[in-house]
Amino acid sequence: MRVKLDGFLKTRKALIEERLPLYIQDLQAPSTLKQSMLYSLEAGGKRLRPILVLALLHAYGKKEENGIPVGCAVEMIHTYSLIHDDLPCMDDDDLRRGKPTNHKMFGEATAVLAGDALLTESFKLITSHMPAEVPAEKRLRLVNELISAAGAEGMVGGQILDMEAESRSISLQELQSIHEGKTAKLLSFSVIAGAVLADAPEEEIEKLREFSHHIGIGFQIRDDMLDLEGSEDKIGKRIGSDTTNEKSTYPAILSLEGAKQKLDEHIEQAKQLISELSLEKELLYEFCDMIARRDH
Amino acid sequence: MRVKLDGFLKTRKALIEERLPLYIQDLQAPSTLKQSMLYSLEAGGKRLRPILVLALLHAYGKKEENGIPVGCAVEMIHTYSLIHDDLPCMDDDDLRRGKPTNHKMFGEATAVLAGDALLTESFKLITSHMPAEVPAEKRLRLVNELISAAGAEGMVGGQILDMEAESRSISLQELQSIHEGKTAKLLSFSVIAGAVLADAPEEEIEKLREFSHHIGIGFQIRDDMLDLEGSEDKIGKRIGSDTTNEKSTYPAILSLEGAKQKLDEHIEQAKQLISELSLEKELLYEFCDMIARRDH
Repeated sequence: MRVKLDGFLKTRKALIEERLPLYIQDLQAPSTLKQSMLYSLEAGGKRLRPILVLALLHAYGKKEENGIPVGCAVEMIHTYSLIHDDLPCMDDDDLRRGKPTNHKMFGEATAVLAGDALLTESFKLITSHMPAEVPAEKRLRLVNELISAAGAEGMVGGQILDMEAESRSISLQELQSIHEGKTAKLLSFSVIAGAVLADAPEEEIEKLREFSHHIGIGFQIRDDMLDLEGSEDKIGKRIGSDTTNEKSTYPAILSLEGAKQKLDEHIEQAKQLISELSLEKELLYEFCDMIARRDH
Repeated sequence: MRVKLDGFLKTRKALIEERLPLYIQDLQAPSTLKQSMLYSLEAGGKRLRPILVLALLHAYGKKEENGIPVGCAVEMIHTYSLIHDDLPCMDDDDLRRGKPTNHKMFGEATAVLAGDALLTESFKLITSHMPAEVPAEKRLRLVNELISAAGAEGMVGGQILDMEAESRSISLQELQSIHEGKTAKLLSFSVIAGAVLADAPEEEIEKLREFSHHIGIGFQIRDDMLDLEGSEDKIGKRIGSDTTNEKSTYPAILSLEGAKQKLDEHIEQAKQLISELSLEKELLYEFCDMIARRDH
């Protein structure tokens, strides 16, 4: 069933991984800094965020090439957030995707600065590495969307809420707000960015914002489920760490069965929204299924 | 002699300090995060970077109001860099301007995130808080200039060079590269931003880039001198800490007398460049003198 998506994920991941290091190599910057930035950027991962940008362009029948700089920008933001999250003063993780975390390799100070640099430089991909045909107004809109998704009103805000929720039990509502900020908004940015670059009608962009909320929350529910029942080999980190750390999760609040049901609801709603749009739907339906069933 | 500049510094500092918190208060973000961002933003300082933006607009006879968002953006970048610099894994400072540093007040994790949020949100002031009359192309140019000044090729890069130079003796050339990145580029951004907003001719903008290099390095030389001969009360931090930390400084490499001479040379060159421009020169001459003679 997932024949089309599997091929898409594989080829686009390769494309992104080919382009991503070039933006860093081109910088006139100290080599330690570039090494540290590249180390985390090249540590692997699904590249889901950039692939979503390309998937939207593909579904609207537009040139995917135009989405590469903005896809790489969102991957740089995602990577900076992982570097800072892993720091001793945050989650204090030694391993990420089976490899030593950035601060274990380069020291804490360099890790902080590599994160800062990835965050700063990410915006440049949108402001000055886009194909000339993308007008200035559209670039500004994309930068604004990225700031909302990544900054105080998005990912960083979600991170603060998450820290404040540690070791106390929280409501489903609160959990939702945390993941809306921490995870869903950046995934949502990818979807919106692809649609904006594809010149999608504004009412479809708003439906896609709703769609990406559902896949973002769905993504997180699946993440929580994998922490309980996944395979350590496939995920690349310890299983059950959420329980050990007394983290609030969807299964903890809703039971594993309830979380699974919630996930299915979000995926159904996401698919319903896609069905109302003027784009090629198959790839995005498969995307929804993949998020619901992924094993890593 | 500094009658005009003194009044300018005082009134514009007040203006910036009135506007700066508004951008944070407006954010739909967790209150701890906003408090932490505001704490460091409101901790005082000379506000030299935003004032330079306004000074350039003033000197070119243009509306200073147009420079306020970009001035506040550069102050937010400066503030984020101080928060991250003060972290235990970086300079490990407990006090900044006579008050507890951000991580002493809010904890390290929140301090890291407050810095990340200030950095991210700073760009929004340029992309979406500028007066409507500033066209999209000009906003993009300003964002690009700010990224070059603050990112891997600017401030963050300089910070890495500085760390790598610790506890070894370095050449004047290396010291210059460190401060070019750490200090001069962000001051230079302020000057360029004011000139770009004032629609200064491109050849004058290039002269102003040179001018700001000289005042940036001059600023740093004076900083090093103040660490040796300044007043703790006025500077708000310990005197002689550079010597204790075995930091390479201009006086250490050139002697105090040699550093003073170097400072005078930079200030002379800065004034020479100003004399060649089509703007009101008096305020900028006074600015040069202030940088050479400041006692804090």
